Amino acid sequence: MSLLTVGTVAFDSLETPHGNVDMVVGGSSQYSSYAASYFTKDINLVSIIGDDFPQSELDDLSNKGVSLEGLKTVAGGKSFFWAGRYLENMIDRVTLTTDLNVLGEFDPILPDSYKNSEYILLGNLTPDIQISVMKQLSSKPKLVVLDTMNFWIDSAYDKLLEAIKLCDVLTINDEEARMLSGEHSLVKAAAKIFEMGPQYLIIKKGEHGSLLFDRNNVFFAPALPLENVIDPTGAGDCFAGGFLGYIAMTGDTSFENMKRAIIHGSVMASFVVEDFSNYRIKSLTKEEINSRVERFVNLTKFSL
Amino acid sequence: MSLLTVGTVAFDSLETPHGNVDMVVGGSSQYSSYAASYFTKDINLVSIIGDDFPQSELDDLSNKGVSLEGLKTVAGGKSFFWAGRYLENMIDRVTLTTDLNVLGEFDPILPDSYKNSEYILLGNLTPDIQISVMKQLSSKPKLVVLDTMNFWIDSAYDKLLEAIKLCDVLTINDEEARMLSGEHSLVKAAAKIFEMGPQYLIIKKGEHGSLLFDRNNVFFAPALPLENVIDPTGAGDCFAGGFLGYIAMTGDTSFENMKRAIIHGSVMASFVVEDFSNYRIKSLTKEEINSRVERFVNLTKFSL
Repeated sequence: MSLLTVGTVAFDSLETPHGNVDMVVGGSSQYSSYAASYFTKDINLVSIIGDDFPQSELDDLSNKGVSLEGLKTVAGGKSFFWAGRYLENMIDRVTLTTDLNVLGEFDPILPDSYKNSEYILLGNLTPDIQISVMKQLSSKPKLVVLDTMNFWIDSAYDKLLEAIKLCDVLTINDEEARMLSGEHSLVKAAAKIFEMGPQYLIIKKGEHGSLLFDRNNVFFAPALPLENVIDPTGAGDCFAGGFLGYIAMTGDTSFENMKRAIIHGSVMASFVVEDFSNYRIKSLTKEEINSRVERFVNLTKFSL
Repeated sequence: MSLLTVGTVAFDSLETPHGNVDMVVGGSSQYSSYAASYFTKDINLVSIIGDDFPQSELDDLSNKGVSLEGLKTVAGGKSFFWAGRYLENMIDRVTLTTDLNVLGEFDPILPDSYKNSEYILLGNLTPDIQISVMKQLSSKPKLVVLDTMNFWIDSAYDKLLEAIKLCDVLTINDEEARMLSGEHSLVKAAAKIFEMGPQYLIIKKGEHGSLLFDRNNVFFAPALPLENVIDPTGAGDCFAGGFLGYIAMTGDTSFENMKRAIIHGSVMASFVVEDFSNYRIKSLTKEEINSRVERFVNLTKFSL
C-alpha cells in the first residue's frame, strides 16, 4: 500500500479576487501527500527544500503518516517559490515570479526504504527527474501516475515521451491532451496518447470535471459546483493524491475502481480550493469527506 | 402533451474545419421540432419564412408530426439567413452575415389550435416576441422553457427580465449565467436567477455537459465525448427540443424526471453535431436513440 510521491514542496504568494497571501506553503507533493493521507498512512515523499521551510509544517506532514526521509534539505538554500495572480474567473492565472532556488539542483536519490513503493505519483517536474525516479525503483510498482504540463510538451517533447512510456496513467488537462496528441477531439486524442504507452488517461477540466479513458471505456466525473472558490492552487495535485491514495487503500487498479478513485480525487480537489494554501486540506474529518462523497454521488445520479 | 415551439426556420451557410456548406436548412424551431418529434407527435411550430424555403423540407417536418399552421410564409420574402465560421475548436464561432429578412417583421399570431399548448419552448428571439406568445395562450401551460443569449442580456435587459419572469425553466450557457447574474460562481448565479422568477435553471456548457439547478438541488449531466464534431449548429436547440419533448411525453415535471429529460436532450444534441444541418437529426431510429441513451448512462455510472 506504499505510495511514493515526487514533486515540489514550496512557497507560494498569490493574488486573487478574494485577497492576497504571501509566502504560504504550497508545492505539488505537499498537496498530493495531504490528499492521499486520508486513504493511506504509508506515504513516501520525495522533494527538496531550503532550510527556510518551517519545521511545524514538516511536523504536520509527518503526523499525517508522510515519510520525509526522501525530503532533502539544502543548508543555506531557499525553497522553490512561485508567485501568481488569479484572474476574475479563478481559472486563468498569470505567473509573476518563479524562483527555482534549490529545485534547480533537484536530483532525487530514493532512500532504500522507498524503492519498493507500490503506487507512484510522478508530479509535474522535468521528465528527466521523473525517469530517474522510475529507474531507482527496485520492484515493479502496481500503478504509476504521471502528471505533466504544457511547458514540458513544448520544451522537452522527446524526453517527455520517454517518461510517459513508463507510466500507466497520464493526467493532463484538455488543452494539454490536444497539444500532446495534435487532435482536437478528446476521443481521438486519447487513442493517440495510448499509442505513447499509458493504459489510462485522465483529462482534468477543472470546474467542468474530468474524463477517464482506457482503450475501451470512458467515464465522465463531475466537479462539484462550489459557492466559493478561494484559491485553485493545488487542486490538480490534491486530485491526483486523492485518486492514487484511494487506489492504494483499495489495492484495486480496475477501471471500475478507478472511477471511484476519481470521485475521491475530485472530492479532495473540491476541498483544497475552498481556502488558501493547505488550510482546508490539512485537517478534514472522515465525516466531511464522506458527506462530500455523497454530494458527488447525488450530482450525477439518475435512473431511467 | 402538445408542445409549442417558437423560433426561427432559416438558411445557414457555414465554414468549418471539416468543410463548408451553403444555404442549408437551419433555425432554432426547426431543430427543436425534430429533436422533440422522437418523443411526442403533437408539436406546434411558430415561425416565419419567405417563399424561398423548400417545400420538401416543410413536408419532412409535417411528416414528423409537426403542425405548420403557425408557420407564416411571406410571399416574395426571403427567409432568415445566417452565415458563420467555426474556429478550429469547433466551439467558438464568428458571424459572417446576418440577414434578418422576413424575421424583421415577425410578430407571431398563434392559431387557435395552438392556444392550449401545454409545453412551451420560447426559442432565442427578442424578449418582446417571447412575451407576446405567452400572452396569447388561453390556458396556463404545464412548463415554459425560455432560451436566450448574451445579445439580449446586453441590449434588452429589462424586457428580458419580463420574459424570464414568465418562464419555469431558463436555459443559458455558463458565460450568460454569469453575465445575467453578475456572479462568477454558478451556484451563486443560480440563486440570483431564481430571484428573477424561474424555478429551474439549465446551464449549457457544450462539450462539458450541462447543469440543472432548482432551489435545493443540482444535477450534472455529461456530454458524450465525440470522435467527430462536424457542425455544432443546432446543438442547443436540439438539446432544448429533446428535453421538452421528453417532458411532454412523460407529463412529469419533477426534478427527477427533468434529469432524465436532460439526458435525452443531450442525446439529441450529440446526434445533430455529427453532421451538417438537419442531416443526422432528421432520420434517427429508436434503436440509435436507445443505444446512445445507454452510452450516456454508462458515462457517469459508478458505485461506491
